[in-house]
Amino acid sequence: VINAGKSQHNEDQACCEVVFVERRPSPRGRLLSREGGGELDGGRRGFYFHYWALFDGHAGSGAAVMASQKLHLHICEQLRDLVDILRDPSPAPICLPHDVRAGTVEPSRVPLAEDDGEVSNDAVPRFHLEKAVSHESLVIGAIENAFKHMDDQIERERTSQHLAGGCCALAAVYLMGKFYVANAGDSRAIIIRNGEIIPMSREFTPETERQRLQFLAFLRPELLGKEFTHLEFPRRIQPKELGKKMLYRDQNMNGWAYKKIEEDDLKFPLIYGEGKKARVMATIGVTRGLGDHDLKVFSSNIHIKPFLSCFPEVRVYDLTQYEHCPDDVLVLGTDGLWDVTNDKEVAGVVMDVLTSYEPNDPCRYTMVAQELVVRSRGVLKERGWRLANDKLGSGDDISVFVIPL
Amino acid sequence: VINAGKSQHNEDQACCEVVFVERRPSPRGRLLSREGGGELDGGRRGFYFHYWALFDGHAGSGAAVMASQKLHLHICEQLRDLVDILRDPSPAPICLPHDVRAGTVEPSRVPLAEDDGEVSNDAVPRFHLEKAVSHESLVIGAIENAFKHMDDQIERERTSQHLAGGCCALAAVYLMGKFYVANAGDSRAIIIRNGEIIPMSREFTPETERQRLQFLAFLRPELLGKEFTHLEFPRRIQPKELGKKMLYRDQNMNGWAYKKIEEDDLKFPLIYGEGKKARVMATIGVTRGLGDHDLKVFSSNIHIKPFLSCFPEVRVYDLTQYEHCPDDVLVLGTDGLWDVTNDKEVAGVVMDVLTSYEPNDPCRYTMVAQELVVRSRGVLKERGWRLANDKLGSGDDISVFVIPL
Repeated sequence: VINAGKSQHNEDQACCEVVFVERRPSPRGRLLSREGGGELDGGRRGFYFHYWALFDGHAGSGAAVMASQKLHLHICEQLRDLVDILRDPSPAPICLPHDVRAGTVEPSRVPLAEDDGEVSNDAVPRFHLEKAVSHESLVIGAIENAFKHMDDQIERERTSQHLAGGCCALAAVYLMGKFYVANAGDSRAIIIRNGEIIPMSREFTPETERQRLQFLAFLRPELLGKEFTHLEFPRRIQPKELGKKMLYRDQNMNGWAYKKIEEDDLKFPLIYGEGKKARVMATIGVTRGLGDHDLKVFSSNIHIKPFLSCFPEVRVYDLTQYEHCPDDVLVLGTDGLWDVTNDKEVAGVVMDVLTSYEPNDPCRYTMVAQELVVRSRGVLKERGWRLANDKLGSGDDISVFVIPL
Repeated sequence: VINAGKSQHNEDQACCEVVFVERRPSPRGRLLSREGGGELDGGRRGFYFHYWALFDGHAGSGAAVMASQKLHLHICEQLRDLVDILRDPSPAPICLPHDVRAGTVEPSRVPLAEDDGEVSNDAVPRFHLEKAVSHESLVIGAIENAFKHMDDQIERERTSQHLAGGCCALAAVYLMGKFYVANAGDSRAIIIRNGEIIPMSREFTPETERQRLQFLAFLRPELLGKEFTHLEFPRRIQPKELGKKMLYRDQNMNGWAYKKIEEDDLKFPLIYGEGKKARVMATIGVTRGLGDHDLKVFSSNIHIKPFLSCFPEVRVYDLTQYEHCPDDVLVLGTDGLWDVTNDKEVAGVVMDVLTSYEPNDPCRYTMVAQELVVRSRGVLKERGWRLANDKLGSGDDISVFVIPL
């Protein structure tokens, strides 16, 4: 739902795709195509991944719209170099020959035959200290870098495409038996399996990332302008309180201690506010996501972007490790859902709705998603949108995917 | 045991104390002493805490010896300012009057009567946005800062006291019904309750803190001298591999990806090696602890200390939340124990030994600690110290506390 009917614009965007990752053509293509298997799609060699993603925009929908149209293509692009490697059960080669992408290879410097020899050799450890890198961590690296490339594209095209604002991004990639759930922002993913709740993401907010942000501000105080302090205080300090002792914590602390208030402590704290009201430099309530390249502190020249990360945390769920029944699902939701409906309540709705449909009815998962959205929006009464318990409904856009495992 | 008998010096140190925290005398002492309760010890107002700590020294025992003699005194010192606050069930005051410690108060600037009034007022939120700070997080902050003061003292006195090296520190503080377990290094604490294992610490090593260290090196490249790169590679790169593609990861990544090898990548990686062999700048295998102020990369002028943190992670266990039986214990051990005996095996030994003694036999916990140490050391055979399964015993100093809950 769009902002519970309170506005006409939707800053939430979503995407759901099946994407074919085609092996990148290379000068060695003919040679390799005679080796082993490999899925063919109309003669093309590669593999498919399934993809679902939610983008919760802020300060405009531009970044969210573009990310919903492009992020899966960036993931595809990062995976293209890995087609042969992921299809090969042996460990990932640690070193590859020169970049052979799109004919950029320089034949004079790279004798192809020798290089081909080295690729296969390299899969066998030749050095005393050599870390084995799993296929799984290559996919994680590909998704991480795809987020970075998406963010770079938004930066490049923001002026010409009039892309306003930024967005949180939550993406689920199903590839070769595993779910990769990548989260940058305050959306959330959980798996509900046999009634049990398995968290598949954590939220990145000024409160959960306080120490990273304080550490950066401590090392690069110029990023704070002259208006902010990297220390956190439980409330604003008044000038007349100079010299008194106030509770604080810095980048090294999880607990609180007292310090004597100095002139510098009167500046506004880098991180301020609690829960949904917590902000970075009084401006933004999420610390990871895409876009926001032009975001500044109100009426100042202080940029927020250096404190934001576009990198997701990626969690992996191996579908082959468990037997799943038709009621086991992966739920993705923007904060519009989770702000008013907690994990346990979501699991309850999943159970209730699914049991009221036949296990083979394909629309039963859509009905769960609808029920979760409508429940979190509430019903319009005289005193605004109200939930079943008469509390205020979510005032935010609400988006939900319910994906059968 | 000392290094399984292989050396004569012990770099592990331990301390176990009951410490009285006496309220700091203040000009307002007489006034406040007429108010409410407060434990009295020979007329002194304050409270006790129980304390156990292990210090695993490296490159000498000097830092470990001093920390074992002093850390609890620093914790006591930090808690002294909190005596009245912790004894008062109302929320901690966010702001206190001027520092009245040891008579440093300036009466002309601080009208005492007015200040006393403000202390009590301040406990009631007067501002729209005001974070409530729990007593628990004050104790956490006190312990965190005590570690910092301990580290500062080692720095100040290292020359005059000939304090060599550094040490990991693991301390358990029992105070007002709660255990506070503070860990800086690779020692470990677990609780075993009704056969269940509850981790009370995590290890801080080049691998677990890779991203923090890479982030620092990325922001402060001068700390790497000209000899190290902040990127991680699965093995050393050879000069002849320039231009090829190599697996790497940076401060933003948990997965791996390929990058084209450039000149700078031939430098030695900041983090290198796996498991127990992982090192920061090829030098040290732990990333938190006390001391090491003079530690440098071998035959260079590159300091390691900027990459080390003296701050512990503090975990809290509320003893009043559970009913405990005589077999429920907190186990503290240095890595000499955990390298060869895992959590589950430790829990097995605890159960086996405790059931062979009467529940009220006071030496049964000491017997568990002895059994854990001896088991992890092994028995001297022709081919060195061997465990029951004939694997090599721990080649390290081994220290264990078994504390009944």
